[in-house]
Amino acid sequence: MSTNGTANGSKQDLDPNQGGDANKKTYHKTATGEALRTANAHSEEKDLKLYGSCFCPFVHRVWISLEHRGLDYQYVEVDVYRKPNLLLDINPRGLVPALRHGDWGCYESTVLMEYIEDLNQGSPLLPKDPKLRASSRLWSDHINRHIVPAFYRYLQAQESDDQVKFATELREQISKLVDAADSAGPFFLGPDMTFVDVQIAPWIVRLEKVLKPYRGWPDPEPGSRWEKLVRAIENADPVKKTTSGDELYLDSYERYAENRPNTSQVRDAISSGGTMP
Amino acid sequence: MSTNGTANGSKQDLDPNQGGDANKKTYHKTATGEALRTANAHSEEKDLKLYGSCFCPFVHRVWISLEHRGLDYQYVEVDVYRKPNLLLDINPRGLVPALRHGDWGCYESTVLMEYIEDLNQGSPLLPKDPKLRASSRLWSDHINRHIVPAFYRYLQAQESDDQVKFATELREQISKLVDAADSAGPFFLGPDMTFVDVQIAPWIVRLEKVLKPYRGWPDPEPGSRWEKLVRAIENADPVKKTTSGDELYLDSYERYAENRPNTSQVRDAISSGGTMP
Repeated sequence: MSTNGTANGSKQDLDPNQGGDANKKTYHKTATGEALRTANAHSEEKDLKLYGSCFCPFVHRVWISLEHRGLDYQYVEVDVYRKPNLLLDINPRGLVPALRHGDWGCYESTVLMEYIEDLNQGSPLLPKDPKLRASSRLWSDHINRHIVPAFYRYLQAQESDDQVKFATELREQISKLVDAADSAGPFFLGPDMTFVDVQIAPWIVRLEKVLKPYRGWPDPEPGSRWEKLVRAIENADPVKKTTSGDELYLDSYERYAENRPNTSQVRDAISSGGTMP
Repeated sequence: MSTNGTANGSKQDLDPNQGGDANKKTYHKTATGEALRTANAHSEEKDLKLYGSCFCPFVHRVWISLEHRGLDYQYVEVDVYRKPNLLLDINPRGLVPALRHGDWGCYESTVLMEYIEDLNQGSPLLPKDPKLRASSRLWSDHINRHIVPAFYRYLQAQESDDQVKFATELREQISKLVDAADSAGPFFLGPDMTFVDVQIAPWIVRLEKVLKPYRGWPDPEPGSRWEKLVRAIENADPVKKTTSGDELYLDSYERYAENRPNTSQVRDAISSGGTMP
């Protein structure tokens, strides 16, 4: 791997994610496809602002929630290496996703999804029944603590033994979620998209657009409950409207698939065994 | 360390937590002090049951919430090596805390605290304002992902370099929480105990009763905001009513302080760098 940039200018112009090689792909700084149309339709200054990066699955969750609720919001694309002051004001590390609502702000995707629910406008994602709400939060926690880390471990694994091990782990953790789903579906709790579907949605998109090309992740088995869930989520309007073209994901995740150092806090957390950011 | 039990009978009678030495302390199987009085007052069969172990801080959170809300519940003490079927029915691993409500059940302390809020009986722990609710959830997440793991890393550290490192980490993560608290207090959001206070309460009890004797954790600096928070939480009725005598904590955490293998999933998760159970 060359340490000098040649294709796109001098070494100083290299993105740290390229790992010192100007021919390597890096993350995109603008959404594409349907997501770009949605971003453009929400570029006007608003009181409620989502700070996000187009490739980030945690941002994707919050964006889907805003679209599902039909809220009046502004989408602000953030370059993770050039963070705006209004974002740093919410958290000194400038983490995305972040929501700013007037002069108040907050971060962490699950906390923001709960906030959007608490605003109580449009159609809810959390059901009314306390038992179904608890079940939704339990399985959201399962996604965050077991499915998401397994996804990254698998994508970053370079040795085939590790790839087999982490593919198995990911499949088992997904199976637990599917076993807990309403048997008729097609969504987790039944006919409508709810909280758990939105929590997993960005990874369903990335199983197809990232894990399939980079690691040969298989299509869902025809006729299975998992296939029903995947198709329902992929085809839900708020998911389609916030999803970019295939190339954006392929390029943005190359650095994970090659496990380049210093690419992100998620990678560092997984590699060091720490907690996810 | 002897591998034969001598003090309390044959090797077969040894608890795995004693690490093969009958003179070692292990966890208690019955609450003591005020917590025992509360457990006895809630031993009658009820529709709403808390399955818990008296030494477990995650159980403690849910127990405090039930007491704060003044709900009509049954406390069921669970020996982690002899789990009742009604608990295994909720989750095959028989994790505590678990709540059973009629024929439905759930687990995970934060999920259960949200469930108790959603029952909407008695005085709430989550405020009404969506922004304060989001802030409560954000700082609960901070406690779960940063303060709790730092507590266990510090308690389990055997080398003095590690102890200094993890004590510093714990202090820094606590400082962030204190900086985010209402400046007048005494509780996190102001004059009343709310969600974040209950989330941290079991660890405030254990800083005093476990980290102080085993690791020399210092008393809060007199007049500091941290001291105000600690004293308010320690003296809150629902906390006092669910706290056992000092010896229970001293004995139950000896296995952590000596970092004995196979003591619990928390220990294994910390030692292997995995996610907390």
